[in-house]
Amino acid sequence: MKNFKEGDVIGITLKDNRKWLLKLEKKVFGTHKGNINLEEIIGKNEGYEVVTNLGHKGYAFYPSLEEIILYYIKRNTQIAYPKDIGYIILKLGIKEGTKIIECGTGTGVTSFVFAHFAGSTGKIYTYENRPEFIEKAKELIKEFGMEERVVFKLKDIKEGFDEKDVDVIFLDIKDPQDYIETVFSSLKKGGLFGIIVPTANQVSAVLLVLERIRLSNLEVSEILLRKYKTNSARLRPDDIMVGHTVYIITGRNLCF
Amino acid sequence: MKNFKEGDVIGITLKDNRKWLLKLEKKVFGTHKGNINLEEIIGKNEGYEVVTNLGHKGYAFYPSLEEIILYYIKRNTQIAYPKDIGYIILKLGIKEGTKIIECGTGTGVTSFVFAHFAGSTGKIYTYENRPEFIEKAKELIKEFGMEERVVFKLKDIKEGFDEKDVDVIFLDIKDPQDYIETVFSSLKKGGLFGIIVPTANQVSAVLLVLERIRLSNLEVSEILLRKYKTNSARLRPDDIMVGHTVYIITGRNLCF
Amino acid sequence: MKNFKEGDVIGITLKDNRKWLLKLEKKVFGTHKGNINLEEIIGKNEGYEVVTNLGHKGYAFYPSLEEIILYYIKRNTQIAYPKDIGYIILKLGIKEGTKIIECGTGTGVTSFVFAHFAGSTGKIYTYENRPEFIEKAKELIKEFGMEERVVFKLKDIKEGFDEKDVDVIFLDIKDPQDYIETVFSSLKKGGLFGIIVPTANQVSAVLLVLERIRLSNLEVSEILLRKYKTNSARLRPDDIMVGHTVYIITGRNLCF
Amino acid sequence: MKNFKEGDVIGITLKDNRKWLLKLEKKVFGTHKGNINLEEIIGKNEGYEVVTNLGHKGYAFYPSLEEIILYYIKRNTQIAYPKDIGYIILKLGIKEGTKIIECGTGTGVTSFVFAHFAGSTGKIYTYENRPEFIEKAKELIKEFGMEERVVFKLKDIKEGFDEKDVDVIFLDIKDPQDYIETVFSSLKKGGLFGIIVPTANQVSAVLLVLERIRLSNLEVSEILLRKYKTNSARLRPDDIMVGHTVYIITGRNLCF
Repeated sequence: MKNFKEGDVIGITLKDNRKWLLKLEKKVFGTHKGNINLEEIIGKNEGYEVVTNLGHKGYAFYPSLEEIILYYIKRNTQIAYPKDIGYIILKLGIKEGTKIIECGTGTGVTSFVFAHFAGSTGKIYTYENRPEFIEKAKELIKEFGMEERVVFKLKDIKEGFDEKDVDVIFLDIKDPQDYIETVFSSLKKGGLFGIIVPTANQVSAVLLVLERIRLSNLEVSEILLRKYKTNSARLRPDDIMVGHTVYIITGRNLCF
Repeated sequence: MKNFKEGDVIGITLKDNRKWLLKLEKKVFGTHKGNINLEEIIGKNEGYEVVTNLGHKGYAFYPSLEEIILYYIKRNTQIAYPKDIGYIILKLGIKEGTKIIECGTGTGVTSFVFAHFAGSTGKIYTYENRPEFIEKAKELIKEFGMEERVVFKLKDIKEGFDEKDVDVIFLDIKDPQDYIETVFSSLKKGGLFGIIVPTANQVSAVLLVLERIRLSNLEVSEILLRKYKTNSARLRPDDIMVGHTVYIITGRNLCF
Repeated sequence: MKNFKEGDVIGITLKDNRKWLLKLEKKVFGTHKGNINLEEIIGKNEGYEVVTNLGHKGYAFYPSLEEIILYYIKRNTQIAYPKDIGYIILKLGIKEGTKIIECGTGTGVTSFVFAHFAGSTGKIYTYENRPEFIEKAKELIKEFGMEERVVFKLKDIKEGFDEKDVDVIFLDIKDPQDYIETVFSSLKKGGLFGIIVPTANQVSAVLLVLERIRLSNLEVSEILLRKYKTNSARLRPDDIMVGHTVYIITGRNLCF
Repeated sequence: MKNFKEGDVIGITLKDNRKWLLKLEKKVFGTHKGNINLEEIIGKNEGYEVVTNLGHKGYAFYPSLEEIILYYIKRNTQIAYPKDIGYIILKLGIKEGTKIIECGTGTGVTSFVFAHFAGSTGKIYTYENRPEFIEKAKELIKEFGMEERVVFKLKDIKEGFDEKDVDVIFLDIKDPQDYIETVFSSLKKGGLFGIIVPTANQVSAVLLVLERIRLSNLEVSEILLRKYKTNSARLRPDDIMVGHTVYIITGRNLCF
């Protein structure tokens, strides 16, 4: 059990299952069911019960990675969803100590998740050529105390990556097919790469390059998340679901 | 770059994309393309090129978690797939330091993945009442050097869990609806639980119990993985796909 | 090529792909791009070009069954979608001359589609106990000139169906499990039945009854329609899709 | 109720739900549960009970269109599935009296289904340049007594279609993007066309041509059929499902 500290990213949930993630500060937070004085949460235990000024009950909690991705990270650019990132983590073998290059940083969502799972002995080298994204992502990583794990590089990768022999390379850029050679000059032999793209045309373009170098263990996939209404007597899928986020391309740096 | 050591779990892949995971020992490994003398791999670098006695080229590599789950862990019982486990990891907020109770151990696949992500500061308490499963799972955890992280409990959970206030509880048992009270007596306030079940009837049975206690942040979902043929000029999904593994139920120990 | 006649159900489409279905009458029809004087369409050929009073170009056309279902039939109650009905038609073997009992009539959407495919030699006996639905459905069938094919029965089916030995029975009611015996007393031997229900619990309830009578050729299925953005250079599925409409249960009146 | 006649296409099903479709002739039909003397079925009623020479019970029945597509039509070439064809029928507005051009004939499966639904007042003009396919398809159409409805054309469509102003055109060919102009020179204004292709690249190629002519009411979609195990107490989707058949492109001959 942890005590909420000022500056923590916490969640607030109300009876109607509405949920917000916010930084714990000495201020008042407004909801559709009334205001909550956040200051009183500081120092309290996880699961602390809050009451709005209109008398509605709620709770404070520490959010999961899934919640941080969905409710806290600003989605200025297209981002991968928890359903995708969870699969990518296992597929790319990311774990304690993994050294990863990623490009672009974007909202920092994958830097953030990779840093969690690569742990204090891992390292994320994240490339981005738009300074404003770097700033936002740095802030996010700092909020969660993982500055040691992430190296931000404000740089166009046309010049290549600075690191060699990393374990994993992950690309979330517009024209990944133009950087396959760059990837393989920095990825260790036997290392894994992942590429996410929104369109089928991009998948084809990447595959075309990969076919030429006869790469092994190639996989192209999609992950679909189908949620259900949580009514025991009337169990059924939600009427509407997310139909598409990204295609996931993965492979291993071993050519035949 | 690491050097292959005797006793490591390694992967071997051939040009036709066939892939095997095995323990590196001084013995000969037979494939449909000829034999490989594993002894020569010991001490070599990742990505080492092997040649079968019939002259077919292959490579040795260190496998990802996804590959270990799919190709190495014996599936005597139904197991969750990487697509499911990846989502569960993010959804349950498992990361360095997380304390987790799980039941049952089964093949040890989730103990194995949870131990990876909970790290050296986390702890997995895994309950199982079939000794033969405990033995297999212990072996798996030992092979990957994570004995410190996993506590095996040969015990029927009808008597309850021994631990209190854990961060996460995960159930993969036949009648989870009978153990909801048990879960909440050991899960910290604000903590997350996950339950996987293969049938819709079980989902309904679990929801019925959860409705009574008015639990918050409940989600029922399925994850579908759709793979594509990796042909740039003829991109299309595989003809056949896995249609179902498990339903995933998650929620937070906060009741209204 | 047909000429539009007063009273016809026609479609109007504008350049932005917006589409409306309406009855062709001597009146003005308002769109977000200006008004169209419908009277001028009467007597014109299919594909007639209309221009709104704001100068926006559009076309008049005869709609497909899919369009009539989606854009013309009022959805006061849950209705099956074209993706479901198309499959049901083939699965139940509906074609010229088929004799069908259905219950309930609801919006009349399935009466309407069945009547189209059963043709002038087929017959639809449709049961409904809410008079207001019967009235609406009758109007729909009349608009499309198929009164000869559809027999409306304002009746609670607790008393059974009046017909015997029909080819097909289709149920879209709340508690289909209570009427299985009723179905089999009116369905010819070897005949096919279809049941649609929105929840998994209802599927289980129906299957429970069917298991007792050891019915053959049973199938439970769902149909998912995944639409794509029609951009040649950026082909990808829609971000949002319909996640669920109904479960489809079908079987044949042959018991073992 | 109909009586089985010699030459009819009938179905035989056994207790284990195995199902065969065959032409009713005076011969013996062998199954894994013993032989059935088909001659005794001639003249019997639908749902006639057969017994194999090993004493296993079965039934004879008239098959649905879905069963004829899946169990009777030889799949020498890729064919659309009932899930796809059902949707296409509604989407293209095929009904009594519809005049349709299709290319290629292939196995005749779509000619067969279109002929059923276009009825005795409709007409199918089906083009194919491989004589052996024409022969097979002709035989199929004849078996079901629909020769009047289908006009077979052994012809390469590079020379165009012979008919003008048809209601519907359906293409199931390798390079549909090369024949879009051909389609629009024979499709009535406001008429609907459908194209099925197995790959995303082909979808893009078709869309590229259609974008140039600014066609309206364009839709690209996929239909997924997810079957369930029919066990009331353990309801769940099948472990394995068909992951892909074809992409369906539809649109209307109205250009902006």
